[in-house]
Amino acid sequence: MSIIYDSWMESHKKPFGALEIGEVININVEVISDVKEIYLILETNEETKKEIKMENKLNGIFTIDKYKFEKENIYFYYFKSIEGENLQVKYYGKSYDCGECVEFYDINDINKYQITVSKKIETPTWFKEGILYHIFVDRFNKTGKINNPKKNSFIYANWEDTPMYIKNKKNEVIRWDFHGGNLKGIISKLNYLKSLGISVIYLSPIFKSQSNHKYDTGDYKTIDPMFGDEEIFKELIYKAGKKGINIILDGVFSHTGDDSIYFNKYGNYDSLGAYQSENSKYYSWYNFKDYPNEYDCWWGVKSLPNVNETEKSYMDYIIRDKDSVIKKWMNYGVKGWRLDVADELPSTFIEALKKETLNIDDDSVIIGEVWEDASNKISYDERRKYFLGNQLDGVTGYVFKNIVVEFLKGNINSQDVYKSFMTIKENYPREAFKSNLNLLGTHDTRRILTELNEDKNLLKLAVFIQMTFEGVPYIYYGDEAGLIGEKDPDNRRTYPWENEDKDILNFYKNIIKERKNNKLLSNGETKFLKLSNQNIFGYIRYIKTNKVLILINRSDIREKIEIESNELIDKKLITILEPKSYNLIKID
Amino acid sequence: MSIIYDSWMESHKKPFGALEIGEVININVEVISDVKEIYLILETNEETKKEIKMENKLNGIFTIDKYKFEKENIYFYYFKSIEGENLQVKYYGKSYDCGECVEFYDINDINKYQITVSKKIETPTWFKEGILYHIFVDRFNKTGKINNPKKNSFIYANWEDTPMYIKNKKNEVIRWDFHGGNLKGIISKLNYLKSLGISVIYLSPIFKSQSNHKYDTGDYKTIDPMFGDEEIFKELIYKAGKKGINIILDGVFSHTGDDSIYFNKYGNYDSLGAYQSENSKYYSWYNFKDYPNEYDCWWGVKSLPNVNETEKSYMDYIIRDKDSVIKKWMNYGVKGWRLDVADELPSTFIEALKKETLNIDDDSVIIGEVWEDASNKISYDERRKYFLGNQLDGVTGYVFKNIVVEFLKGNINSQDVYKSFMTIKENYPREAFKSNLNLLGTHDTRRILTELNEDKNLLKLAVFIQMTFEGVPYIYYGDEAGLIGEKDPDNRRTYPWENEDKDILNFYKNIIKERKNNKLLSNGETKFLKLSNQNIFGYIRYIKTNKVLILINRSDIREKIEIESNELIDKKLITILEPKSYNLIKID
Repeated sequence: MSIIYDSWMESHKKPFGALEIGEVININVEVISDVKEIYLILETNEETKKEIKMENKLNGIFTIDKYKFEKENIYFYYFKSIEGENLQVKYYGKSYDCGECVEFYDINDINKYQITVSKKIETPTWFKEGILYHIFVDRFNKTGKINNPKKNSFIYANWEDTPMYIKNKKNEVIRWDFHGGNLKGIISKLNYLKSLGISVIYLSPIFKSQSNHKYDTGDYKTIDPMFGDEEIFKELIYKAGKKGINIILDGVFSHTGDDSIYFNKYGNYDSLGAYQSENSKYYSWYNFKDYPNEYDCWWGVKSLPNVNETEKSYMDYIIRDKDSVIKKWMNYGVKGWRLDVADELPSTFIEALKKETLNIDDDSVIIGEVWEDASNKISYDERRKYFLGNQLDGVTGYVFKNIVVEFLKGNINSQDVYKSFMTIKENYPREAFKSNLNLLGTHDTRRILTELNEDKNLLKLAVFIQMTFEGVPYIYYGDEAGLIGEKDPDNRRTYPWENEDKDILNFYKNIIKERKNNKLLSNGETKFLKLSNQNIFGYIRYIKTNKVLILINRSDIREKIEIESNELIDKKLITILEPKSYNLIKID
Repeated sequence: MSIIYDSWMESHKKPFGALEIGEVININVEVISDVKEIYLILETNEETKKEIKMENKLNGIFTIDKYKFEKENIYFYYFKSIEGENLQVKYYGKSYDCGECVEFYDINDINKYQITVSKKIETPTWFKEGILYHIFVDRFNKTGKINNPKKNSFIYANWEDTPMYIKNKKNEVIRWDFHGGNLKGIISKLNYLKSLGISVIYLSPIFKSQSNHKYDTGDYKTIDPMFGDEEIFKELIYKAGKKGINIILDGVFSHTGDDSIYFNKYGNYDSLGAYQSENSKYYSWYNFKDYPNEYDCWWGVKSLPNVNETEKSYMDYIIRDKDSVIKKWMNYGVKGWRLDVADELPSTFIEALKKETLNIDDDSVIIGEVWEDASNKISYDERRKYFLGNQLDGVTGYVFKNIVVEFLKGNINSQDVYKSFMTIKENYPREAFKSNLNLLGTHDTRRILTELNEDKNLLKLAVFIQMTFEGVPYIYYGDEAGLIGEKDPDNRRTYPWENEDKDILNFYKNIIKERKNNKLLSNGETKFLKLSNQNIFGYIRYIKTNKVLILINRSDIREKIEIESNELIDKKLITILEPKSYNLIKID
């Protein structure tokens, strides 16, 4: 190796992380042997590769000074050097995995060297400083008797019965199962949510459909009659609003149900569905390979026919019409949408939707279901631009969960955690990182307590990280009550009213209170610490000179930890952490 | 052939059919060629074969005069003749199948030549002249909300949802499904049952258990709490009694549930179960091959461990204890028991039970679940003696149903019907025939309307036969409302309250009224007619000189029928039957 470069060092790249258009960046590369010239090579998916010759300003350092990106994009870069007597050409890049300079030849891997340049973004404060609660409506709370049950469906005999799918031998669901949770049930628990400290409720889909999860939309403009009606929904929004709680809906726009007013496979609706006639006004929404029985569907699930999202009449129906789906529900006061399977939605659809939602309510948000680093995700051969300013405010933080869980379970050590979080922080625009949904579980993962082998101490550590981290804490209903559960459907058990784990619940309440009372936690910047003890993970949350140090010891033994002085800490700091414990230290 | 004998001709055997001890019988055999001697050979399963030399009283006829059987039993017989110059020995018998004399060599087939000799039997009039209604409790009617639902079970979202089993891939039921029918629901429909003309209700099992069918008894002495409690049961018996309706319970005594106070496999009960400890007082009830997980069970179904019915402590518990199961419930006014899988119950058990029930209530009945000709059934290598006076009053008439269905569907013709019914009538003691449960369907068969390809005209013919036949009409709930259904579980759909087929219901009501108003139908003797038209089946019901002629035309065409004069009809009778119709003709 002849050069050294580490994008996480301010002496090499400044500022750290993503840029907004117009921001300038300095890049310095250190030279440790005979290098004649260095070029910064910039690539995007669309533009021609750009080679920028670096200036040998200072002895042993090549520099690009105050470089300005003209356009939002995801830029990848590496260095080309000309070295030695023979003017040999070499390429250098950095792999996230090691965090050090390595020779870099594999162009396919280039996205690991990334500068995200976005438009100026500002996410609403209510959201980025909020605490989100994810409610799977059928399982959260039920009041009254069950109204309008689906034909040929089952109701769990007891609220506490464990969920299961009723399937045939081909593994197809043949009857839907319901616990009967409903919107009135949520209204009656608003006091509870308020006392927990919740400020945002994200509801799993609530529109009319056959299933209990309702990702098989039957009618985008009707509340499922088992859940309630528009009057009750209005009441929910009004009463939640009075408590300072906003509502976000689940927008399922990549497919509909086959049993819908649009597709109408079974003729259950009065409308002329695409399945029924090629003259249906919904016909163009779908892709038939062999009409009517062969059609494109979500992951091959025949009950979920895919839609052509960019088909004009679909875009109009969902987004643009005077009475479009998003207008209808946002006019009731809905403050945002969580886009189901965002990776399957074309950019033009997301952009149009984002634009229109801002027209309706400039204080609204759009979040997306994305399972990986959303700053450079490729889906369907397209590099996604979720965070560049026209699409998403934040995404589902499965990456956050994975890092926390793997660390707490001992599968990765704190240095890995450091690197993983640094990577996300570097790649995500600041606002996207602040709006990242720091979740520990959803309806699609094992319950966090189960994931952590039912170790309540580890759970508390996970929740402690979640509640002291930059980004939006995202609680999957019932995690705070100590629910356990393997993967779907077991992770959709009902909230155990009257049988909550009080110890866990109190822990949540207290740590949420701590976060809400401490602006450093809800709004501070983050500096991750690179610690030598593999069992200790730590970071500093700060606003100007106000700082708290956060330390987590995952190990079974007491650990003594020394923290080197750095730009935020004046002098070396020594502290002791009990086994499986955390510490929050105010530092001056 | 050298001799002629037909046991259905009074000139050959008199009286027709079964005998009571002490009754005398005459047997005559006609000789048509050179016969020297004839012997009647009598066999039973237990006794030594008896050879009785017949007297050559009249020219060409060999006779046994006024023979008296000393003991109740099922006797089989055939003839040995000594013929011709060489005194050749030949054997003769009659096969039911042809109704004529054939040479008979197959000794294994001997039971086709049968004389049933029973003790003097008198079945209670309320039963043998009654009309029985079989209620599958979970599916008949529900009032109020569902009480005490089972843990981890499902309730059908709608009363009209079609039943299904919730099974795993090994075909095992993993959750039980309930519609929520209950005893109060039955009470609230007593007026309906009365208006229909019902006088006996047979309830599917009502004792506490996990399943919806409750053949997996959990506690013989407790009403299942989803169905109700003892107060409600008392009310049912009282209110039914006030309307002249008696109640019969389902006695499931060949096995218990594994989830019972007796076996207690899952520890759901406080008692010390046989599965839990070899010191359990119930240990001797069961047969363990390898304790505790290998045990004898019903048809290999692990959830139904078989009991040793003749184990003293079991017999005491069910029959003899002061607070035995049968005493407990009969003291509430239960008028009888339907013995589930009677073939699996040892004779000593049934006899003890019959004896004790008569001690408690000499007006009570015991009926048995038997699917075949119950007068000579062999089960577990034992020739069963259900009808000889100490065991059963009647059995489930699947034979009746099979004959009627096969005739109406055109699979057999009226001559076959004649032979089949003659056989049953000959073999069954008179009282057993009068108490035979003439059913068209149960919870174990396809619904009769489905069985008849949903042809309502054929259904009416079947019901017409049922309601004009000798024996007890047995209505499976909902058949009268036009319910359809394939085999279990589809045959256990809920009663369609408010959606009955009014045409069918009215037909039932009217024909039942006809039966109740006409002693000939409810109590008359029967003479089956041997008609030449294969589509017409007919019989005469009579008491002394009062007679009605019943004719059924199953064909699609109008049929003209001539009935020869016989001992009941003075002169030849000619009538016309419309397609798929019946006629009931008073004759003088």
